[in-house]
Amino acid sequence: MHELTDHAQRLADLRAELARRSLAGFLVPRADEHQGEYVPASAQRLAWLTGFHGSAGSAAVLRTRAAIFVDGRYTLQVRGEVDVDLFTPRHVSDEPLSAFLAEGLKPGDKLGFDPWLHTESQVRKLKADIAKTGAELCAVNDNPLDHVWHDRPAPPSAPVTAHPIEYAGVASAEKRAALGAELAKSGVAAAVLTLPESIAWLLNVRGGDVDCTPLPLSFAILHQDGGVQWFVDPKKVTEGLETHLGNAVARHRPEDLEAALAELSNKTVQADPATAAAWVFDRLRAAGAILHQAPDPCLAPKATKNPTELAGTRAAHKRDGRALTRFLAWLDDSVGNGEVSEMRAADRLAELRRGDPLFRDSSFETIAGSGPNGAIVHYRVSPESDRVLQQGELFLCDSGAQYPDGTTDVTRTVAIGTPNAEMRKRFTLVLKGHIALARACFPTGTSGSQLDSLARYALWQHGLDFDHGTGHGVGSYLGVHEGPQRISKMPHNVALEPGMIVSNEPGYYRTGAYGIRIENLVAVVDSDIGTEDGREMLAFETLTLAPID
Amino acid sequence: MHELTDHAQRLADLRAELARRSLAGFLVPRADEHQGEYVPASAQRLAWLTGFHGSAGSAAVLRTRAAIFVDGRYTLQVRGEVDVDLFTPRHVSDEPLSAFLAEGLKPGDKLGFDPWLHTESQVRKLKADIAKTGAELCAVNDNPLDHVWHDRPAPPSAPVTAHPIEYAGVASAEKRAALGAELAKSGVAAAVLTLPESIAWLLNVRGGDVDCTPLPLSFAILHQDGGVQWFVDPKKVTEGLETHLGNAVARHRPEDLEAALAELSNKTVQADPATAAAWVFDRLRAAGAILHQAPDPCLAPKATKNPTELAGTRAAHKRDGRALTRFLAWLDDSVGNGEVSEMRAADRLAELRRGDPLFRDSSFETIAGSGPNGAIVHYRVSPESDRVLQQGELFLCDSGAQYPDGTTDVTRTVAIGTPNAEMRKRFTLVLKGHIALARACFPTGTSGSQLDSLARYALWQHGLDFDHGTGHGVGSYLGVHEGPQRISKMPHNVALEPGMIVSNEPGYYRTGAYGIRIENLVAVVDSDIGTEDGREMLAFETLTLAPID
Repeated sequence: MHELTDHAQRLADLRAELARRSLAGFLVPRADEHQGEYVPASAQRLAWLTGFHGSAGSAAVLRTRAAIFVDGRYTLQVRGEVDVDLFTPRHVSDEPLSAFLAEGLKPGDKLGFDPWLHTESQVRKLKADIAKTGAELCAVNDNPLDHVWHDRPAPPSAPVTAHPIEYAGVASAEKRAALGAELAKSGVAAAVLTLPESIAWLLNVRGGDVDCTPLPLSFAILHQDGGVQWFVDPKKVTEGLETHLGNAVARHRPEDLEAALAELSNKTVQADPATAAAWVFDRLRAAGAILHQAPDPCLAPKATKNPTELAGTRAAHKRDGRALTRFLAWLDDSVGNGEVSEMRAADRLAELRRGDPLFRDSSFETIAGSGPNGAIVHYRVSPESDRVLQQGELFLCDSGAQYPDGTTDVTRTVAIGTPNAEMRKRFTLVLKGHIALARACFPTGTSGSQLDSLARYALWQHGLDFDHGTGHGVGSYLGVHEGPQRISKMPHNVALEPGMIVSNEPGYYRTGAYGIRIENLVAVVDSDIGTEDGREMLAFETLTLAPID
Repeated sequence: MHELTDHAQRLADLRAELARRSLAGFLVPRADEHQGEYVPASAQRLAWLTGFHGSAGSAAVLRTRAAIFVDGRYTLQVRGEVDVDLFTPRHVSDEPLSAFLAEGLKPGDKLGFDPWLHTESQVRKLKADIAKTGAELCAVNDNPLDHVWHDRPAPPSAPVTAHPIEYAGVASAEKRAALGAELAKSGVAAAVLTLPESIAWLLNVRGGDVDCTPLPLSFAILHQDGGVQWFVDPKKVTEGLETHLGNAVARHRPEDLEAALAELSNKTVQADPATAAAWVFDRLRAAGAILHQAPDPCLAPKATKNPTELAGTRAAHKRDGRALTRFLAWLDDSVGNGEVSEMRAADRLAELRRGDPLFRDSSFETIAGSGPNGAIVHYRVSPESDRVLQQGELFLCDSGAQYPDGTTDVTRTVAIGTPNAEMRKRFTLVLKGHIALARACFPTGTSGSQLDSLARYALWQHGLDFDHGTGHGVGSYLGVHEGPQRISKMPHNVALEPGMIVSNEPGYYRTGAYGIRIENLVAVVDSDIGTEDGREMLAFETLTLAPID
């Protein structure tokens, strides 16, 4: 008898469930209910169904065909992880979902989706895409995939603890009062918060529900008066947390969110279509709330760090820089014996960081790529890919840590023995770009997209470039990637504000040969340049403290 | 008896006319039916009503109050030209129209506007603005201002002539066939064209209906098969033009446009909401056409000049550079006698340009500002403001010409005698920015907003900046300002394509003291930098040929 593989069986089970519900298809994004960078095991539906473990992607399952959509970073990886006879790999922008649906759906078909796993904006786009096919987009109440996922892990329930004022700098009550007053000014009664990092920042709490970021997964509703309804699994709540939160934060179970939204009928309620699940908007509409669509109100104040957070990040970077500098010295001493591999190096760096009693976690999985592995921008070392660092090669090491006083992220590229002239030349071009950006003064109001070319100009003049952003925002003992600010080619007009932390990480990658990246974190500060023109100028303070090779 | 001033009388007449029509107010933009940079005298309604002659602005007349809205360039000028007791000057973004209407309109009021003078996008925004007041926005069939403007000049009727293939490079039939095929590919039956520069480019014709730009004012409908219905005053048509245009271009009177739009019922018709009058959209909707909103299809191909146009602009710049170089030499010789004024200098430059038999017109009104006048970015010399060029001053001269083979625009800043150390330093910073941009290589797909900071970096590092764009597109014997490409702080993603012409014009202005600007035109070209990375890189070829002081 022919036995189905795990993934073939899972796909068949899902299709049977869809047929039972008269659905012609179903969408399986990588996202969970919170749209975060890290997804807990209990919500890794895309990985369970397809085997794909990349950080972005989605699948669409129709009656007789299924496809998986990934971006340029993952076109190789998807073929290594996924059975392409089950799921046809497609490039998310060149062969988009809309075209796949147009080919596979016919008028009258019902395409299911879980409104918890798609943002309101995504659903709007989906609706436009599917309109042309004559099929109907149907929100499902319980996810058919969850119905057939029998050994689904339990949701995470790591303890939630207070993020003390000595690190947070501003009390939660003060943050809540300020944001509540902003809502009042816009005539908004309440704002629904679905991003765990926003809630962690607002309540000054931290947790451990996902990898590399100290986040408790939860939901919240912030009211005009600064009061908060917090929807969090009671199992996670630790002793003393209630006292830390005070009376204005009312704790509820996550399953109570629906009833709480229903109570907002006839009130003006703010929610962020770019980050909040369509489910939230559906419930608010059903409740008869007046929708005020606006960005999550925590994003901007969270991004501009207060003086305590800035002092914290400086202290964290001092300790982190000490560990990294010791690592670089160890590497210098040890690499000559031909026994240092990528994994050994990454382990040694982790060991040195763990020596700091304030070390809590990595802020992301270390990238340690030597020779050709350094040219793979999203390389992750594994026993299969591990290689010994060899003379004449470059070794690229991108790593970071979570400390209660700050989050770090740093890349150094080290020459093992003597690099060749081309490597030296291109390292110099990357470093020129890094320095041009690090030393830039710029007027108030300038966005990261205006500054991006400063980091590329030296490379461009030699016909070279790199295919990733120049800088991303960084949280304060929160996500190592946070918005809204960024330094990239993509046009946007988010001004860089004093207190924002961004990375400065130009690079150069020669496929099959070597990779170069030089990354520091920098804080936006008032410039001390004074001119009679009286322009308000900003500048960057480099936070990262470790030698560049 | 108290006599009203001209403008008070005109405002009173307009209000009487509005009352007769039961309108609570009326909007008077500076634009004409074509949304062009230059407006013929017959359409200068804003100037007639208010006295304001700036290049951007609008007025709103309500029953008991009226306001004029201008941007930062014109806040001083508006107070010099307009009776502020009649029209309250307001800053267009700080004290916007929406706020003025909210203060002055009540529910049930009717606010009139002429749908010929506002684009579809503008009307959409107006509707949203006025919705909050409870008043109603009413398109008027005949403009009430025109009804009381008794001595209104006749519309311009300058002759339309062929723009020969030796300058145009590509025959109109070829352009029309290519664009028609594009329309067919998008399932569009016809596109309505309202921008005179688009029609001039498409039909290879030129005219003289407005200042400084060789434009015939007209409308057109382009069909899938490359055929064009051209709506132009027959008085303007010169001998031989019909032969030049051929049978596929059918000539109609402008007043026939309405009937022609009505014939498009049930067809998919393209129009550009950003540039076409709301009137066009209203007529198409009334006809039952299926609207396809998309940018004017001529904009992109017009912006990327063909090899003939590029050769033409190089030839034009050689001749223009000769005139400018002679002017600079004359200035050097003459300025010592203390008798050269700004007007004398501008006249001398015009005289030298007119010596070229191919000279047709200025491409804009010359800016010739010495000393403090140089710091006024949009300075226009007049007998009242004219000053003699003095030792130790800087003289800024921004001018350009229209030749059948190309349009020029160049700024030089000349030291009269010996400039001081600060002037020298800042001139050097501006020049560094100019050179950094002129020498830039950049990957295919790069937009002008990504390159803007290269021209500012040297100034920024000294706390300095300039408050205008770094570069604008330039036409080929067409507008000296054309889109869609530009180099500016405003985020956008219009890629610079080979063949596009843009200005490179960083500056520095010290109010009350001096102004510096160094402007050349550059063409986007393929870069000759070759690397093994195989990236397609672009660069700029500087077209302007004249010494920098």
